[in-house]
Amino acid sequence: MKTRIETDSIGKRKLPKEAYYGIHAQRAKENFSISKEKLHPLLIKHLAHIKQAAARTNQLGGALPQTIGSAIETAAAEMAEGIWNEQIIVDSIQGGAGTSANMNVNEVLANRALELIGKEKGSYQIIHPNDHVNMCQSTNDVFPSAGKLAMAELLEQLLTELRYLDDSLFQKKLEFADVAKIGRTQLQEAVPTSLGASFGAFQAMIHRDILRIQAVREKLFTLNLSGTAIGTQVNTTKYYRQHILETLQHFYSDTLFLADDLVEATQNLDVFVEISGCLKTLAVGLSKICNDLRLLSSGPHSGFAELALPICQAGSSIMPGKINPVIPEVVSQVAFHVIGNDLTVTMAVEGGQLELNAFQPILFHDLFASIELLSNAGRTLTNSCILGIEANQNHCAETLANSDSLITAIAPLTGYEHATILLKEARKSKKPVSALIKNTKMMSDQRLAQFLDLPESHQPTGSD
Amino acid sequence: MKTRIETDSIGKRKLPKEAYYGIHAQRAKENFSISKEKLHPLLIKHLAHIKQAAARTNQLGGALPQTIGSAIETAAAEMAEGIWNEQIIVDSIQGGAGTSANMNVNEVLANRALELIGKEKGSYQIIHPNDHVNMCQSTNDVFPSAGKLAMAELLEQLLTELRYLDDSLFQKKLEFADVAKIGRTQLQEAVPTSLGASFGAFQAMIHRDILRIQAVREKLFTLNLSGTAIGTQVNTTKYYRQHILETLQHFYSDTLFLADDLVEATQNLDVFVEISGCLKTLAVGLSKICNDLRLLSSGPHSGFAELALPICQAGSSIMPGKINPVIPEVVSQVAFHVIGNDLTVTMAVEGGQLELNAFQPILFHDLFASIELLSNAGRTLTNSCILGIEANQNHCAETLANSDSLITAIAPLTGYEHATILLKEARKSKKPVSALIKNTKMMSDQRLAQFLDLPESHQPTGSD
Amino acid sequence: MKTRIETDSIGKRKLPKEAYYGIHAQRAKENFSISKEKLHPLLIKHLAHIKQAAARTNQLGGALPQTIGSAIETAAAEMAEGIWNEQIIVDSIQGGAGTSANMNVNEVLANRALELIGKEKGSYQIIHPNDHVNMCQSTNDVFPSAGKLAMAELLEQLLTELRYLDDSLFQKKLEFADVAKIGRTQLQEAVPTSLGASFGAFQAMIHRDILRIQAVREKLFTLNLSGTAIGTQVNTTKYYRQHILETLQHFYSDTLFLADDLVEATQNLDVFVEISGCLKTLAVGLSKICNDLRLLSSGPHSGFAELALPICQAGSSIMPGKINPVIPEVVSQVAFHVIGNDLTVTMAVEGGQLELNAFQPILFHDLFASIELLSNAGRTLTNSCILGIEANQNHCAETLANSDSLITAIAPLTGYEHATILLKEARKSKKPVSALIKNTKMMSDQRLAQFLDLPESHQPTGSD
Amino acid sequence: MKTRIETDSIGKRKLPKEAYYGIHAQRAKENFSISKEKLHPLLIKHLAHIKQAAARTNQLGGALPQTIGSAIETAAAEMAEGIWNEQIIVDSIQGGAGTSANMNVNEVLANRALELIGKEKGSYQIIHPNDHVNMCQSTNDVFPSAGKLAMAELLEQLLTELRYLDDSLFQKKLEFADVAKIGRTQLQEAVPTSLGASFGAFQAMIHRDILRIQAVREKLFTLNLSGTAIGTQVNTTKYYRQHILETLQHFYSDTLFLADDLVEATQNLDVFVEISGCLKTLAVGLSKICNDLRLLSSGPHSGFAELALPICQAGSSIMPGKINPVIPEVVSQVAFHVIGNDLTVTMAVEGGQLELNAFQPILFHDLFASIELLSNAGRTLTNSCILGIEANQNHCAETLANSDSLITAIAPLTGYEHATILLKEARKSKKPVSALIKNTKMMSDQRLAQFLDLPESHQPTGSD
Repeated sequence: MKTRIETDSIGKRKLPKEAYYGIHAQRAKENFSISKEKLHPLLIKHLAHIKQAAARTNQLGGALPQTIGSAIETAAAEMAEGIWNEQIIVDSIQGGAGTSANMNVNEVLANRALELIGKEKGSYQIIHPNDHVNMCQSTNDVFPSAGKLAMAELLEQLLTELRYLDDSLFQKKLEFADVAKIGRTQLQEAVPTSLGASFGAFQAMIHRDILRIQAVREKLFTLNLSGTAIGTQVNTTKYYRQHILETLQHFYSDTLFLADDLVEATQNLDVFVEISGCLKTLAVGLSKICNDLRLLSSGPHSGFAELALPICQAGSSIMPGKINPVIPEVVSQVAFHVIGNDLTVTMAVEGGQLELNAFQPILFHDLFASIELLSNAGRTLTNSCILGIEANQNHCAETLANSDSLITAIAPLTGYEHATILLKEARKSKKPVSALIKNTKMMSDQRLAQFLDLPESHQPTGSD
Repeated sequence: MKTRIETDSIGKRKLPKEAYYGIHAQRAKENFSISKEKLHPLLIKHLAHIKQAAARTNQLGGALPQTIGSAIETAAAEMAEGIWNEQIIVDSIQGGAGTSANMNVNEVLANRALELIGKEKGSYQIIHPNDHVNMCQSTNDVFPSAGKLAMAELLEQLLTELRYLDDSLFQKKLEFADVAKIGRTQLQEAVPTSLGASFGAFQAMIHRDILRIQAVREKLFTLNLSGTAIGTQVNTTKYYRQHILETLQHFYSDTLFLADDLVEATQNLDVFVEISGCLKTLAVGLSKICNDLRLLSSGPHSGFAELALPICQAGSSIMPGKINPVIPEVVSQVAFHVIGNDLTVTMAVEGGQLELNAFQPILFHDLFASIELLSNAGRTLTNSCILGIEANQNHCAETLANSDSLITAIAPLTGYEHATILLKEARKSKKPVSALIKNTKMMSDQRLAQFLDLPESHQPTGSD
Repeated sequence: MKTRIETDSIGKRKLPKEAYYGIHAQRAKENFSISKEKLHPLLIKHLAHIKQAAARTNQLGGALPQTIGSAIETAAAEMAEGIWNEQIIVDSIQGGAGTSANMNVNEVLANRALELIGKEKGSYQIIHPNDHVNMCQSTNDVFPSAGKLAMAELLEQLLTELRYLDDSLFQKKLEFADVAKIGRTQLQEAVPTSLGASFGAFQAMIHRDILRIQAVREKLFTLNLSGTAIGTQVNTTKYYRQHILETLQHFYSDTLFLADDLVEATQNLDVFVEISGCLKTLAVGLSKICNDLRLLSSGPHSGFAELALPICQAGSSIMPGKINPVIPEVVSQVAFHVIGNDLTVTMAVEGGQLELNAFQPILFHDLFASIELLSNAGRTLTNSCILGIEANQNHCAETLANSDSLITAIAPLTGYEHATILLKEARKSKKPVSALIKNTKMMSDQRLAQFLDLPESHQPTGSD
Repeated sequence: MKTRIETDSIGKRKLPKEAYYGIHAQRAKENFSISKEKLHPLLIKHLAHIKQAAARTNQLGGALPQTIGSAIETAAAEMAEGIWNEQIIVDSIQGGAGTSANMNVNEVLANRALELIGKEKGSYQIIHPNDHVNMCQSTNDVFPSAGKLAMAELLEQLLTELRYLDDSLFQKKLEFADVAKIGRTQLQEAVPTSLGASFGAFQAMIHRDILRIQAVREKLFTLNLSGTAIGTQVNTTKYYRQHILETLQHFYSDTLFLADDLVEATQNLDVFVEISGCLKTLAVGLSKICNDLRLLSSGPHSGFAELALPICQAGSSIMPGKINPVIPEVVSQVAFHVIGNDLTVTMAVEGGQLELNAFQPILFHDLFASIELLSNAGRTLTNSCILGIEANQNHCAETLANSDSLITAIAPLTGYEHATILLKEARKSKKPVSALIKNTKMMSDQRLAQFLDLPESHQPTGSD
C-alpha cells in the first residue's frame, strides 16, 4: 500500500496515499472501536450542506480565495449525495462531542478539493481541513446543527408513515362502525360499543402523535450556527455571521432560524429531551394499540377473538397451523427499544456540563435509531396488519348478547342496588340478563334492542 | 363505638355510626393498605366541584329532586373547601381505576346531604351514593377529569415558582454580565465568556420549560366528562350531556372543553405521558443547572471556585467550617425522583387495555408528587441559592488570564497548525500564551486585551 | 414560647426552649422544605444503635467520660425505641449526604443526655453534639451504615411477605394440578397444560426472587463504619477502630463486617443499584403474574375466564354487579412505581463524585419506599387474591376440548405439512380436530384422551 | 435468476434456486424490515450447536435415519463455524418469539443437508425443516437456550476485558499510592487522601462487577431444552428428553443444567432482568469512574488538574492544542446506552404473557449489544486511558497544603466549635490553616506533617 504521512500536535501518522480522510479521522477510528457502526448517512449529508454553505459564505465575504472555496463547494456537494460516505470512517459512538465526525468531514473535503484543483492529497498548506474547510466553524456549532437537520429529515419520513397509519386506522373505523361489540373496562365486560370505536380511538391517538411530532420538529430549525466553540462566535467574520444562515437556507424548504442566545443554544440540549419524549409518547401509544390488537385477536377458539389479523407467516416450528400476531409483537418490541433510548437521551442531556454537552454522539445515535425504527414499525403495522384486519362480526354480536351489559342500562330505572340484585338472579338462573329484563317489562323491547344495537348503542342511552 | 350496618352486593358491613364514608370506602380501605397515603386534597376538591356541577345540572334537567340536589350541592361545596378530607379514607394507590376514590366521595356526599336534610346517615333509599350523587356519571369520566383539573392547579403553582426562578436567573445574568471568565468545553478551558452568560443560559432553558409546561397544561382542560363508563355516554340524560360542562365552567377561569371523541378520550392517556415528559425535561434542566453550580462553586481553594453559593448550614458533623452545596444537591435529588416517576407514568399508560386504563391512581399519585417536588425544589433553589450567589470575580479574571484561550484567537492569523506549535512552546517555556503572542507581535495589544475583556470578548472576535 | 439561643458558624438562632433538636436541625428544616416527609423511623432507630455503640466504645476506650457516655447511651436507647421520633424534624429528602439527619440525631441525643444528667438543654460545653455524640464518627460513615441496617430490616419484612406468597402459590399449584387447560403462546392456543402449572410458574419465579433478595441482603452488613469523612479514619481513636463493630454487633443477629477498603466503601454505592435491581426484578415478576391473573380472569362471559378472583368490592359506580381484578391492578401499579424508583436510584448512584456520593437521602427514601410498597403489595396479593382464587374447571375443559391443540400431537405421525392440511380441513368443516383425527385413526382413542387429560398431557407426549 | 417454488400453509412462493433459506425465512424477511440488522453470529452458532446435538440424539434414539441425521449434523457443524451466516436473512428484531430465526436455521440446515446427500434444495419430503431438523424441538426451547449460550460467551469476553481493567486500575493504585492529595466530599475539600486510594476505589468496584457478572453468568447454563412449545415436552421422545443435554454438553466446558420446571423456565425470563441489572450496575460504575477522571483531569490551568489523561487525538476543530477527555466521554455514552437498554429489557420481560414471552428477540438484541458495547468500552478505557494516566504530583501536593483540611485534624483537640472559629480566622487573615495551627502549638510539627503526608495521613489520625 502506498502511503502518505500526516502530522498533528501528537505526531506523525502514515495513511493510505489514496485516503481522503486524514490523520484526525485515522486516530479517531483507532480510539473509538465501540459500536462498529458508521455515522448516519444523513448526518454526513447535512454536515456537507453546512460545509458547502460556509465555503460559499466565506468566499463571498472575501475570507476564502475563490479557487479553494469553489473546490470545497464541489466536494461538499458530492459528499451531500453520499459519494464519499465510505471515507467517513469514524465510529458513530465517539468521545469528543462530534469533533472526530466534523474533522473526518473536513479532511475528506480538503483532500477531495485538493484533488479537484489537481493537487496531491495531504497538501494542507494549500487547502487545510481546519483553516479552510472549517473556517468560521467549530464542531460545537456545526455538529449539532447538522444533527438537527438530519433529525428533521428523519422525522418527516416518520410523519409520512404515521399519516399513512392514521389513514388506515380511520378507514377501519368507518369499516367497522356497525360492528357492535361489548366494551370492556379492566378486561371485564362493561357496556356496548363498536369495533369501529376501537379503531377510532387508535386513530385519534396516532393523530395527536402526528401533531406533537410536527410541532416539535419545527424547533429543530433553530440553529446555533456561527456560535463556534461555545456560542460567543469566536473566530467568525462579520460577513459570515450575517450571511451563513441565508446561504444555508438554499438547501432547505423549512425556514431556518438563528438562536437568540448562541451561548445557551450551544450548551442546552433540552429540545432533544422534548423530542425524545414525543417519540416515547408515540411508542407508548403504538404499544397500547398493539397490545389491544393482540388481545382482541386472541383465540382462535377461546380468548376475545373479536377480530382476525392478516396471516403473515406460519406461526410455529412445532405447532402446525398456528397463527401468531407477529406484527403487533414486533411493533411492541420497537416501542420498548424506543422507550429505552429515551432514557439514554435523558441521561446524556442531564450529563451536560458548563458550556458544552459532550454526549451528543450517543444522543444522535439513539434518536436517529428511534425515529427509523418507529418509521419502519409504523409502515409495517399499516401494511402487514391494520389494512388486512377483519372483524369476527358474529362472535362480537354473540358476546355482546350474552353479556351482562344490559343491567347498566336499566340501573337508572331500578336504582343501582336493585339492578345488582337482578343481575345476581340472572347469574344464579343462568339466564341472560336480557331475558330477565324482558320478564320484568321494565324496558320496552325496542329500547332493549337499541341498547344492544350499535349505531343506537353508541348513542347515549339515558333516561331521556 | 356506635355502628350502623350497610349492605352491598358482597354482603353487610358494620360502620361507625358517625362515619360519612360508607361500605364501599370501608372495603376499599381494607383492600388497599399499600402506600398509607391518602388522596391528594386537590383531587378531592375537584371531584367535589364535578359532583356539585352534576347535582346542579341534574336538578335543572329535572332528573334530581331539588331537595336532594340542593343538599348534595351544599355538601360538595363544603367538601371542595377541604372540610371532609378526613372522611376520604381510601389509599392513594388503589386498584380499580379510581372507583374507590369516587365511591368514597359519593358516600360522604350522600351522608352529609342526608344529614343536611335531617336524615340518618346510611338512609340511601332517600339519597343514594350511586343513584343520586353519581347520577349521569361514572368513575371513568369523573376521576380522570378531576385528576386533570387538580393537575392543572398544581402546574399553575409550579409555573409560579418557575417564573420566580426565571426572574432570579435573569437578575444574575445582568449582575454578572461583566464578570469575564474562561468558558469550558468538556471541562477543559476553551475560550472567554462571562459568568452572566452562564446564568443567561440557565435562564433561557428554564424559560423554555415554562413555555412547554404552559402549553401542555392547556391540554388538561379537555375532559371526557359525560362519557361515563367507556365514553359512549351510557346512562346520561340529554340535558346533562348538553349542560354539564357549562355548569362546571363556573368553578374555573380556564375554558373547559369536551373531547371530540369521548370513547378515545376515556381510554387514551397519552396526555399524561406528554406532561410527564415535560416535567422530566424540566428536571433534566434543573439537574444540569445544579451540577454546574456545584462545579463552579467547587473549592474552596482548589476546584473551579468561580462563584460562592450562599451558606445555608454547617456542612459537616466532623469537618469544622466545611460548606457544602446543599441546595443544588437537594434539587438534583428531586430531579432524579421526577425522572423515575416519569418512567412509572410511562409504564402505567403503556399498560392500558381496551376501553380503559386501570392504572390512573398511580399515575396521578406520581404526577402530583413530581409537580409538588419540583415546585418546592424550584422555590428552594431560587430563595436559598440563586439569589445569594456571589461571583469570585478576581479568581475568574486570573483563571482567564492564565488560560490558553488566546491561542484560538490568533489561529485565524497563523493557521491552526502554527498556533498549535506556538501553544506547545508556551507550555514548554511555562510562559502564558499572551506573553508569547506579544512577542510575536501578531496581534495588537488592544486586540489582545479585547479578546480577554468581556463585553468585547463576548462579541465575536474574528478577523473582520 | 420560651426560647433558647444556639450558635453555629453562621450565627445565632432562637429555638424553642424545650426542643431537643438544635440549631443544625432547625436550619436544615428551613432549608429543605421539599417532600414534607420525615426521616424513616427505622433510619432513626439504626442511627441510634450506632450512636449508642459509639458512646459505649468511646467510654471503654477512655475517650469519653463515663457520665457523659452513659447519658448518651441511655438517650440513644430511648431513641431506638422511637420515643424521640417527633424531635427528628428534618425532611427525608435533603442536601448534604445526610449531615442534617445525623446532626439532628446528634443534637437530640446531646440535649436528652444533658437532661438526664440534670443540665439545661443547649449546654453543649458539657455534652456537645459533635464532640461527644458524634465522637469518632462522620455523617459519611454513620448515615450509610444506618441506612443499610434499616434496609436489611425492611428487606426481612419483605422476605416474610414473599415467603407467604410463595407458600400460597405453591398451595394453588397443588390445588389446581388436575385442572387441565389449554396453554397459550402469544395469546394463541397452543398445547395442553394445567392451571396448576401456571401457578407453579408463578411460584418458581417468586421463589427465585426470595433467593436473590436473601443473597443481596447479606451484602448490607458490610459497613464503612469508622471510615469517618472519606474512609481514611481521620479523627478516630485506635480503640474505637478496633472495637466499634463488635460493640455494635450486640444489636444485631446478622454478622456485621467491616469493609476491606473503607475509602472505596465510602464512595461506591453500587450495592444499592444491585439491590434496587433485585427489587425491580421482583416488580417485573409480580406485574407479569398480575397481568396473567387479569387475563385468565377476564370475562365474565367472554374473555379467557379460566379462573375467578375473590370478590373484594363492588367494581363500578355505574355498572351494577361488575367485578374487577382490583388486587392485581394495585400490585401492578406498585410494580410500576418500584421500577420508576429503580431509575431514581440508578441516577443517584451514577451522580456520585470523587470521595462521596451526596445523593444518599433520595436513594434511601426511594429504596425504603420500594421495599415497603412491595411488602404491602405482596401481602395484599396473597391475602386478598391468591388464596381465594377458584378455577373455572368446566370452562377450562371445554376450551381445551375445542382447541386445535391435538393437531400438534399428531404432527410427529403425519409430518408438519400434512398436519397443517388436516387442520385447515377441520376449520373448513367446523368440526373439532379431535373428531377429524378419530376418523383418520391415526391415533388410538386412548392416546387421544391422554393428550387432552392432564396428568398425562403434562407428561411428554412424543412418539415413544 | 433461477427459482424454485416452496409452499406453506399460506401459499406458494418463488425463491432463488440456490437459496439455502426457505419460504419461512423469505416471508419473515419481508414481514420484518425493522432494524436492517441480521441475527447475531453467536446466536446462529449456538442454534447450530443445538441443532447438531438434536440430530445426533435423534439418530441415537432411533427417531432419525442415520443418512438424514448425519447430513444435518455436518450442515450444523458448518453453520456453527459461520459459513452460512449469509443465508440467515431474517431481521434481528422480529415478531413471533424467535420462530423466524429458528425456521431460517431449520431451512438452511435442511437444504444444506439435502445438498450433502446429493438432493435438490427444497426436497423437503426427504429432509424437512420441521420434521427432521426441528425434530423434538420448538422455537420456544431452542431459541432461548441458544440465546443464553450466546450471552454466556459474550459475557466471558466482557469478563476478560473487565479483568484487564481491574488489573490496570490495581497497577495505578500502587503507582499512585504515595501521591498525597486532598480528598473531596460534595466537590469541596475535605481531608487528605492519596491518588492511589482513588484508583483503589475504582478497582474495588470493577472487581465487584466481575464477581456479580460471573455469578449471574452461571445461571445462563440452566436451559429449558426439551420443553418444546410451553415446557410440557410435547412431541419429544423419551430418548431425546433423557439425552439431549448430555449430547449438547460436548460443545461446552461449562456444565449445562436442565431447569427443574420446564413450564416455568419457558415463560419466566427474570434471569435476563437480573443480568441486565448487573450490566446496568457495571455501567453506573464505569460512568462514575469516567466522571471522576474527567473531573480530576479538568484544566489544564484551572479546574482540579490532579492527573493527566493520555493524549489520544487533537481535541478541537477550532481551538489549537486543546486536549479533551475523549475516552471517558465515550465510555459514559456507552454507559447511558446500556442503562437505556436495561429499561428495554425490563419492559420486554414485564410484557410476557401466560406460557410464553413473545419479546425475546428485542431482549437478546439489546442484551447482546449492551455486552459488546461494554466490552469495547472496557478495553478502550484500559488501553487508551487508564494505562497512560499520569499524576500531577506537584499540583496535588500544593492543593493539599493550601487546603483547610488540617482544621479537621485538630478538632478533637480543640473541639468542633473552637476549630470552626480558628478556621474563620485563618480565612480572614488569608494565612493557611497550617501556619495558624503552628502558632497555637496545639499540634507538634511532626504530627502536622504526618497529617498531610500520605502513608501516614492515610492511616487514621485520631488522638491515640
